[in-house]
Amino acid sequence: MLTSSVRRLTSTASHNFEFMSYMVNKINSVNKALDKATPLCKPVVKIREAMRYTLLSGGKHVRPVLCLAACVLVGGQESTAMPAACAVEMIHASSLIQDDLPCMDDDSLRRGKPTNHKVFGEDIAVLTRDALIALAVEKMATSTSLGVSPERVLRAVVEMAKAVGTEGLVAGQAADLSGEGMSLEEDGARLEHLEFIHIHKTAALLEAATVTGAIMGGGSDGEIERLRKYARCVGLMFQVVDDVLDVTKSSDELGKTAGKDLIASKLTYPKVMGVEKSREYADELNREAREHLHAFDSAKVAPLLSLADYIVNRQN
Amino acid sequence: MLTSSVRRLTSTASHNFEFMSYMVNKINSVNKALDKATPLCKPVVKIREAMRYTLLSGGKHVRPVLCLAACVLVGGQESTAMPAACAVEMIHASSLIQDDLPCMDDDSLRRGKPTNHKVFGEDIAVLTRDALIALAVEKMATSTSLGVSPERVLRAVVEMAKAVGTEGLVAGQAADLSGEGMSLEEDGARLEHLEFIHIHKTAALLEAATVTGAIMGGGSDGEIERLRKYARCVGLMFQVVDDVLDVTKSSDELGKTAGKDLIASKLTYPKVMGVEKSREYADELNREAREHLHAFDSAKVAPLLSLADYIVNRQN
Repeated sequence: MLTSSVRRLTSTASHNFEFMSYMVNKINSVNKALDKATPLCKPVVKIREAMRYTLLSGGKHVRPVLCLAACVLVGGQESTAMPAACAVEMIHASSLIQDDLPCMDDDSLRRGKPTNHKVFGEDIAVLTRDALIALAVEKMATSTSLGVSPERVLRAVVEMAKAVGTEGLVAGQAADLSGEGMSLEEDGARLEHLEFIHIHKTAALLEAATVTGAIMGGGSDGEIERLRKYARCVGLMFQVVDDVLDVTKSSDELGKTAGKDLIASKLTYPKVMGVEKSREYADELNREAREHLHAFDSAKVAPLLSLADYIVNRQN
Repeated sequence: MLTSSVRRLTSTASHNFEFMSYMVNKINSVNKALDKATPLCKPVVKIREAMRYTLLSGGKHVRPVLCLAACVLVGGQESTAMPAACAVEMIHASSLIQDDLPCMDDDSLRRGKPTNHKVFGEDIAVLTRDALIALAVEKMATSTSLGVSPERVLRAVVEMAKAVGTEGLVAGQAADLSGEGMSLEEDGARLEHLEFIHIHKTAALLEAATVTGAIMGGGSDGEIERLRKYARCVGLMFQVVDDVLDVTKSSDELGKTAGKDLIASKLTYPKVMGVEKSREYADELNREAREHLHAFDSAKVAPLLSLADYIVNRQN
């Protein structure tokens, strides 16, 4: 599964850079670290099973790879960003479990498997979310053991907390809920609302992933802010592509319920601007993302350029 | 409401210490800080309303007061522990919202008012929990602005994260769910299971409140560990008293649904050892809690002694 989802990309990665082996290598490292971080021990074995079920369910780990790549780009050791990379994937897993809950999207399929609450029950799923968030905070906050200064670790913790709360995921999800069935007259207002949702629901966590990587890697303020801008473009692009895939692919191809945005009458980019214009917009965001990397060493920037290409060209 | 819940205590507080005015003063400070931390601004005004609904619903703020008192006892300025005190109350509020959810206890009354999801809907309630947890982490992690060292702040953040996760609230809640309708043959096994639930579901957060206060206040490792032991006794005692109140008081007196442990066939202290023995056990825990404070300056220890008396003698 891992290689098949990556293989599709190699033809599109336009750089002289072994992207496929890079991704496989990083995804393996992240999986190994996530596996180690969630041993199946007492107490609450069932909660730990549920954590692992979503955390190790063959995700492409785009967020942790962004985190590791940003760390290395600013001159850091990849290992110093691994706890942050794992933390961001834990937060992401927690948000997936939440999205699928009966009181949210009420979905039964995710990555080709039954959703967390379908397998473990809603009560365990809700507790599993807490366990993932708490472990994410703990993992990041103990990064000083890897030689990162306490000041930097705290800065990264704050960055991640903001990405989760009322300035991030929570705001995006709340706007998403309030926008269901929305029939705003003006395309402009619809687009603004949609952009708000995507920037908060998706881009905020991709931004936090990239920025915490740069912080842990010892990046300067200038480097961190350039990477922030890159990540914002990539994050928004990620969701534009997601919207397009939702209307153009089958559930089998996606590994999750296709067409559900339409069924829920959700605002999406294809709905506001059509599929073709949405694809063009994604390409434009990719170009913009690349521009923010110009000031970095061109030899070192290949992973982040390829990651952006990967996201814009992905098929599931 | 605030003064009536405190007034009942003054007759039982056995120390030459103005406990009532102390509590009123601290509760007011905490409420002011919580109010300031959750302004009703954009975005997600509804989420912020829901946060404030539970956070500022007339709670007795036992946890934040423990936090502030521990900070002062070890020689710290109270203000340096205020973010941690607010954080612990946010975590507590989040756990109350969760306990009341349809997939958990499915409760409609809390502190004499409809529960959060009854007022705002289940989707908003779930997002409100995330917002509270994220804000709690952010508040604590930015305590360096008050002069606390980054090392200490990180230590406090880890302490809090552990109290929430698989070693704390999550473990307690999971064990509570798995124990419903439990009919273990042996009283010993039932007591062990019950103690596990209470230590994790209740005592862990009271412990984290006290310990983070001591950390923020600059306490030595010895002081922190003594306060940890005090808080563990107080935390367990808190829940034993809660169990007794559930079977001896009316919903009106409690401000929440009475007798719900019985209805849910939950394991409780009165069920395992009877009401009288449960009261005796609470008194014993109070004595033990006081012993852990012996090594501190007796002039400064009055707030924590009175708090323990307050908890053991509370009527709601």
